[in-house]
Amino acid sequence: MNEEFLIKLLQDIKDENISIEEAVENLRELPYQDLGFAKIDNHRQLRQGYPEVIYCAGKTPNQVAEIVKAMCARGSNVIGTRANNEMYAHVKNICKEAVYHEDCKMITVKNQPIDMTQSYIVIATGGTSDIPVAEEAAITAEMLGNKVERVYDVGVAGIHRLFHKLEIITGAKVVVAVAGMEGALASILGGLVSKPVLAVPTSVGYGASFGGLAALLSMLNSCASGTAVLNIDNGFGAGYMASMINKL
Amino acid sequence: MNEEFLIKLLQDIKDENISIEEAVENLRELPYQDLGFAKIDNHRQLRQGYPEVIYCAGKTPNQVAEIVKAMCARGSNVIGTRANNEMYAHVKNICKEAVYHEDCKMITVKNQPIDMTQSYIVIATGGTSDIPVAEEAAITAEMLGNKVERVYDVGVAGIHRLFHKLEIITGAKVVVAVAGMEGALASILGGLVSKPVLAVPTSVGYGASFGGLAALLSMLNSCASGTAVLNIDNGFGAGYMASMINKL
Amino acid sequence: MNEEFLIKLLQDIKDENISIEEAVENLRELPYQDLGFAKIDNHRQLRQGYPEVIYCAGKTPNQVAEIVKAMCARGSNVIGTRANNEMYAHVKNICKEAVYHEDCKMITVKNQPIDMTQSYIVIATGGTSDIPVAEEAAITAEMLGNKVERVYDVGVAGIHRLFHKLEIITGAKVVVAVAGMEGALASILGGLVSKPVLAVPTSVGYGASFGGLAALLSMLNSCASGTAVLNIDNGFGAGYMASMINKL
Amino acid sequence: MNEEFLIKLLQDIKDENISIEEAVENLRELPYQDLGFAKIDNHRQLRQGYPEVIYCAGKTPNQVAEIVKAMCARGSNVIGTRANNEMYAHVKNICKEAVYHEDCKMITVKNQPIDMTQSYIVIATGGTSDIPVAEEAAITAEMLGNKVERVYDVGVAGIHRLFHKLEIITGAKVVVAVAGMEGALASILGGLVSKPVLAVPTSVGYGASFGGLAALLSMLNSCASGTAVLNIDNGFGAGYMASMINKL
Amino acid sequence: MNEEFLIKLLQDIKDENISIEEAVENLRELPYQDLGFAKIDNHRQLRQGYPEVIYCAGKTPNQVAEIVKAMCARGSNVIGTRANNEMYAHVKNICKEAVYHEDCKMITVKNQPIDMTQSYIVIATGGTSDIPVAEEAAITAEMLGNKVERVYDVGVAGIHRLFHKLEIITGAKVVVAVAGMEGALASILGGLVSKPVLAVPTSVGYGASFGGLAALLSMLNSCASGTAVLNIDNGFGAGYMASMINKL
Amino acid sequence: MNEEFLIKLLQDIKDENISIEEAVENLRELPYQDLGFAKIDNHRQLRQGYPEVIYCAGKTPNQVAEIVKAMCARGSNVIGTRANNEMYAHVKNICKEAVYHEDCKMITVKNQPIDMTQSYIVIATGGTSDIPVAEEAAITAEMLGNKVERVYDVGVAGIHRLFHKLEIITGAKVVVAVAGMEGALASILGGLVSKPVLAVPTSVGYGASFGGLAALLSMLNSCASGTAVLNIDNGFGAGYMASMINKL
Amino acid sequence: MNEEFLIKLLQDIKDENISIEEAVENLRELPYQDLGFAKIDNHRQLRQGYPEVIYCAGKTPNQVAEIVKAMCARGSNVIGTRANNEMYAHVKNICKEAVYHEDCKMITVKNQPIDMTQSYIVIATGGTSDIPVAEEAAITAEMLGNKVERVYDVGVAGIHRLFHKLEIITGAKVVVAVAGMEGALASILGGLVSKPVLAVPTSVGYGASFGGLAALLSMLNSCASGTAVLNIDNGFGAGYMASMINKL
Amino acid sequence: MNEEFLIKLLQDIKDENISIEEAVENLRELPYQDLGFAKIDNHRQLRQGYPEVIYCAGKTPNQVAEIVKAMCARGSNVIGTRANNEMYAHVKNICKEAVYHEDCKMITVKNQPIDMTQSYIVIATGGTSDIPVAEEAAITAEMLGNKVERVYDVGVAGIHRLFHKLEIITGAKVVVAVAGMEGALASILGGLVSKPVLAVPTSVGYGASFGGLAALLSMLNSCASGTAVLNIDNGFGAGYMASMINKL
Repeated sequence: MNEEFLIKLLQDIKDENISIEEAVENLRELPYQDLGFAKIDNHRQLRQGYPEVIYCAGKTPNQVAEIVKAMCARGSNVIGTRANNEMYAHVKNICKEAVYHEDCKMITVKNQPIDMTQSYIVIATGGTSDIPVAEEAAITAEMLGNKVERVYDVGVAGIHRLFHKLEIITGAKVVVAVAGMEGALASILGGLVSKPVLAVPTSVGYGASFGGLAALLSMLNSCASGTAVLNIDNGFGAGYMASMINKL
Repeated sequence: MNEEFLIKLLQDIKDENISIEEAVENLRELPYQDLGFAKIDNHRQLRQGYPEVIYCAGKTPNQVAEIVKAMCARGSNVIGTRANNEMYAHVKNICKEAVYHEDCKMITVKNQPIDMTQSYIVIATGGTSDIPVAEEAAITAEMLGNKVERVYDVGVAGIHRLFHKLEIITGAKVVVAVAGMEGALASILGGLVSKPVLAVPTSVGYGASFGGLAALLSMLNSCASGTAVLNIDNGFGAGYMASMINKL
Repeated sequence: MNEEFLIKLLQDIKDENISIEEAVENLRELPYQDLGFAKIDNHRQLRQGYPEVIYCAGKTPNQVAEIVKAMCARGSNVIGTRANNEMYAHVKNICKEAVYHEDCKMITVKNQPIDMTQSYIVIATGGTSDIPVAEEAAITAEMLGNKVERVYDVGVAGIHRLFHKLEIITGAKVVVAVAGMEGALASILGGLVSKPVLAVPTSVGYGASFGGLAALLSMLNSCASGTAVLNIDNGFGAGYMASMINKL
Repeated sequence: MNEEFLIKLLQDIKDENISIEEAVENLRELPYQDLGFAKIDNHRQLRQGYPEVIYCAGKTPNQVAEIVKAMCARGSNVIGTRANNEMYAHVKNICKEAVYHEDCKMITVKNQPIDMTQSYIVIATGGTSDIPVAEEAAITAEMLGNKVERVYDVGVAGIHRLFHKLEIITGAKVVVAVAGMEGALASILGGLVSKPVLAVPTSVGYGASFGGLAALLSMLNSCASGTAVLNIDNGFGAGYMASMINKL
Repeated sequence: MNEEFLIKLLQDIKDENISIEEAVENLRELPYQDLGFAKIDNHRQLRQGYPEVIYCAGKTPNQVAEIVKAMCARGSNVIGTRANNEMYAHVKNICKEAVYHEDCKMITVKNQPIDMTQSYIVIATGGTSDIPVAEEAAITAEMLGNKVERVYDVGVAGIHRLFHKLEIITGAKVVVAVAGMEGALASILGGLVSKPVLAVPTSVGYGASFGGLAALLSMLNSCASGTAVLNIDNGFGAGYMASMINKL
Repeated sequence: MNEEFLIKLLQDIKDENISIEEAVENLRELPYQDLGFAKIDNHRQLRQGYPEVIYCAGKTPNQVAEIVKAMCARGSNVIGTRANNEMYAHVKNICKEAVYHEDCKMITVKNQPIDMTQSYIVIATGGTSDIPVAEEAAITAEMLGNKVERVYDVGVAGIHRLFHKLEIITGAKVVVAVAGMEGALASILGGLVSKPVLAVPTSVGYGASFGGLAALLSMLNSCASGTAVLNIDNGFGAGYMASMINKL
Repeated sequence: MNEEFLIKLLQDIKDENISIEEAVENLRELPYQDLGFAKIDNHRQLRQGYPEVIYCAGKTPNQVAEIVKAMCARGSNVIGTRANNEMYAHVKNICKEAVYHEDCKMITVKNQPIDMTQSYIVIATGGTSDIPVAEEAAITAEMLGNKVERVYDVGVAGIHRLFHKLEIITGAKVVVAVAGMEGALASILGGLVSKPVLAVPTSVGYGASFGGLAALLSMLNSCASGTAVLNIDNGFGAGYMASMINKL
Repeated sequence: MNEEFLIKLLQDIKDENISIEEAVENLRELPYQDLGFAKIDNHRQLRQGYPEVIYCAGKTPNQVAEIVKAMCARGSNVIGTRANNEMYAHVKNICKEAVYHEDCKMITVKNQPIDMTQSYIVIATGGTSDIPVAEEAAITAEMLGNKVERVYDVGVAGIHRLFHKLEIITGAKVVVAVAGMEGALASILGGLVSKPVLAVPTSVGYGASFGGLAALLSMLNSCASGTAVLNIDNGFGAGYMASMINKL
């Protein structure tokens, strides 16, 4: 529930477009809407400026679709992460505007126009295989109204590729470094730029990568100041936090 | 083997409804019944007040069905956990009353009426994805004769949803907190209520959740007193222990 | 080497206060000054706006003192972390203005005045035992010119203490959450405020805390958006990154 | 702040023993008392029935003594865990009644009489080396008003010792099983008794005990229903939760 | 290559049944037979008294069949572990006598009669789900000529089932304890019997069982003397070592 | 981009075979060629003497094929690791010469003749199941122009097989030891030969092998000097480094 | 309580050397003697053939001395492991015959003559630093009446040292392999000898040895059949189990 | 025992300077010299070209001194690693020429002149705190006759310091990269130079560095080809292997 929705509702009462009873019905769900299996946090947009985001993994396709339906009914934009094709099919049935981003397993619905920032976020990856996580970050940030610059495949194995893109990177207000394997990209960027770096370890790798643990520990121990770390493969979290910082 | 069964057997002897030989045959299996691959603990209901529960994972569908059959033959109620569809099909063949709870993978058979408690157990979850584990706890507790109140999707990301349900939570005799990811729900509840909190970490999450390890460690280190922890995804254990406490 | 130092040097040449040879001698060390065992990154202040920070652990007291001496000679402010009493004694010998912060094991020297920000950083702790890490963050941020508000001992075991301080917390531009044990403070703050939260797990705890691992994993898996995580006990890193964000 | 203290305060106002101003001064600290480095949760006794407990580790001796002083001033009983001799010396200086339990590193002060329960808690250990953790549980439970029966050194290496004590164990309302190494005691007790078993792994052992990890995992995976687990060496938590259950 | 084979070969030379050249051809492979992808250790039976055992996992079905073929050609009995159905199909094609034990994934071929011991090995399991690992141990031991007694499903959740079988257990020369979850069976048996106990942790369990790690650590830390531990799910290794001990 | 390609290009300009514009177009991609999702490091062959190698895992089949296409267009030899059948099908479509090595999941294309070394690399395995990793090393080394001797299935369970091959092993310039399970082969070879040993742990094994962790730790702790370790299953890395050493 | 003690007691009654009352007093402690903090398992010698062994770590010096005193009073031989100098001083005070083995931290008292076996146990170490653990095994085995042959410092870094001792090793009835670092000694011995090998990982090493974890995992994954593993540094357990096997 | 020693011995026999008996006495210890607690591998110098190196940790000072004495008696150069001051005092007593390198805890004795190589090894560190490990590598390499160039404190936090030294680094025949924290130095060097890189993780760091685990995993997962990894803090191993490669 965003502010426009709330203002319009109150205006409608004043204008006698809707009855007090109808308004009460609507406002009853201001703090959250109870679907039984889920309690949608309608208050979040007022409290934090962003709508609730749906973490789809572990939910049934029906549950995902019901939550999308309820959010659309309130005019919210929708971001769903870690959604599979079956979930999308259910969502598509009740919301034709829903888009599925297959590479990063996201569902988005734009029910309202989005104002974009002037300043931008750089999202960089160490390799091509890290792109799905980077895209989760990029699309999240864009849905939240941020200009994004993608700088992909600039890992330390061929570091001249990174230096070649240095100008665009240093021009950002905040940088997201997405890398698997040893995750050295975060330290390199942290040492080169004077802006906050959000480091996202990915599960790209094998053997002693232990599902991204190597990159995670590497990034947590970065000798370069000015970096903070997200969960493994948590592109969404990086996009969300980068948006928070970019909008300060 | 429950007390009623035992009393009736002895009465039947006294009334000469059955011969001594038949009674001996029946009593031979009082401590346990040997199926070769399994030794059903018939004594447990006398010793602990509850029948043995079948852990189905790793057993063949035939083994599961044979155990159910033997328990039904003695009139016990049956609880089977971590059962798949194929196991259920085998069970259904030999016991028409068997019910399959698909979301939490349980098989139950009610061969005897169940007395329900006045006091109740609250089972709360952090999110929607934690519901299957919570349902395992809830159905276990209900099969053991406890009134259960479900309070789902009240995690700390939108903590006002939890406060909204505080009255029903504080009215419980024991609280089960089911949560994945960082599992903070257990600490919040431990700090707010004056009743024992049983914390169940779930494997909901990804990356550095490490299959529920993050929630497990978080709950074990809760700074709030009055919480104890079950194995990851062990809804059954929580329901069982909550029942023990609720019936004190 | 800060900008003022550089401008004055060039002006001195122009004013013929120093010879070209002397200037070259000075500028030779513009990128870094080589002490043999260490290469002081004089260029950092120009590149990143902050001087190099000395990580004292693992260095000999003499090495620490030599680095401080070289930095003071260039007029830089000095921040040294993880310093013990013996290191401080050596530093004090060559620099009378050096201050030792015993609780957080830091050495600081103010050779230049520090401009303070209007906006402020909140640094919160779960308990009293987390204060040393929080102080490392606070003093770092203050040395870098940031106004800091300390909100200590507001962990989830008695959450009303946190709500009591909510106004000062929500007024911050960025929040640092320092907590050991299960580290739930970060999730609570992430769910309540609309500003970036930097989560610092501490090694406070015992047993399955595994030296801070429990809090670390908990914070990485936070279900609240808008948090990013630092290394265990890394107060310095949090203060540094908070400063970067606060100055955007 | 307990109920008696509150009732007396209000009565004093009514009887005009103290002025309104004095009462306000007292009530200002009803929710918590702010010592700067600590916020004592005075509200806890009203909310949960027990006073706040001091986790001494990581606090300075002065901080511990100040907190004890403030609690004594309000007439609360005091429990401090993980206190060393130096902390006790500081506490003793400001509170002559303070007692130090050296084996389990606890400080206790009885400022009010304690009513004891009829029902009792059994606290059992696998070996002699587990006694310090067991004593932490026992003294905590006794300070909270519970009758305690100690059954020490009854581990599975000589299981007849356990069977010899079975009567006293099965008579308890709740059982605490304290064991290191492989921690099998919890499973044995869980299989034998029909009461809730709180399992406390200890760090007793070496090598692949990994500081208690072996016992912790063992207890979490107990095949016996009716057990829940506390943190490694967390005798206090077990005593506290056992008290909660014993008083139901 | 067993002794009979060798004796017969030498006798054939003496009797001029085969030429020197043929004998050399045969003896060339006495130490090992080189198949390119594998070097079959023909010398093992002479050196250790048992033929080489085929670890099938990770080999192609063709490789498994080729090795079996070469061993059969030399008259050895064959034991193959961790074989799947496809491997068996390939083996069956070249050796009609091959038997597949589906529950424990073993292939066996008896090309020579097996003398059985008088003394026997007890193989006990905690639960029904541990049977496949126990069967791997049992069949291995039987193929190596040992009498085996199976005592299944006697875990600590219902310990009277174990005591009921105590006579048969204490009569063994060596005991194999196979258990998952918390693996307490090994400690119980170690404390009760005066014979060597070989403990085999299984991967039966979930959550904090971590694939058998909990049982493994539990068994390694057994407080009962006289136990040694095999790898998780290593029934073969236990059967092999039990045979070694049983035949002393 | 190799030196021949570069020389020919410059010669073509001189000979006026191509225009300056065409040459510029070609040279624009000298440092790297940007495909959007990937930046092919054309400079590597000049910098390191070897072309870039494609890590196929995590890339889409289309991305793999596009990279191969771009490399072939420049006349480079191509090495792709961890490729599946679908990727190969896409590559085959655009490059008929591509070869798929199914056992080690590699794609290779020889666009240029390869000079082979006189000195050779020994690649040894502990067992047959380690061969796929060994083949990845062998084919990599051969594509880079090294003579390779394969010595497979010589693990410590039958150590005479290793001694039988000692002459060929000690004749190598560098030895690659590929082994799973306990990985003792590396220590044995390190103790026997006077040449550098590159140890490659494999994920062959089960249970407490933990995906190759046991072999990895074993090799890192080798008591024999002169060994260094690669990532688990990293045959490619071993082949590449062995080539570097063999060509010194 | 050994058989001789029991026979003599009964004989004394018969001979009227002691009264029935005195005999009862003595027999009251047949199953165990309760010292409050410890329950000495007097029954063990009858049940298992060996007296209880004192695990001294974590006990107070007084507790250790009291247990030794009680055991000596019954005429048992005494084995105490992991004892420090202070414990020994207390023991020496009450038992002049007590011997302290400083290198392996054991206390022994011989109150009865010990019959030695004809067959012998070989105890081998990888290096000199493993000797303390090996000595714990050796002295335990000797106290239990076994002939022991020590073969120290024969690790795989110079494997000819091992082959030089092969005759004495292969003559043993059971072999104990004690090794740290990568623990390859166990696999080598397992592959060479046809007797059971008990593998004891030690904490000798550093870095990725992780306190003996590397050697432990290595030994658990041994590709050689006929080995079983003890806890890290558990020389006592190996000596005890070797004795059990040696006496079969 | 080096070749010169052997040749001189044989010449002495020929020249009748020593009797056959004396020569036999000397040659008896050709394979190894048995000190009881240690078997010095005299054969190693013939087999591998380098004398045995003493790993001092875990040995008594007396044992270390005895081994040094025996090696000096044979004219070997001596390298002892991880030696403390007390060990050095014992060694100094029996060998005046012994040198103690306090920063890296090494003892060296030069009994023979050392020929130095023309080509050189670069040993680089990320920070000043990594120097002790680097010095262990450097002194080992120098004792084995290699020219060494030290390039210290060139970590990625200020990467221009590394580029400034690039010429000296690329001129090496083999590079040793020593780094703690996130260990990114190895990847950077691996990407920049065309020579083998030996990566040594150090335990420098805190928190989630987990004693060097972070750097170890990072280096094992390096995305740059041409790197292999040593154990944490294993400077000796790196120096030894670098020497092997440098001398090819």
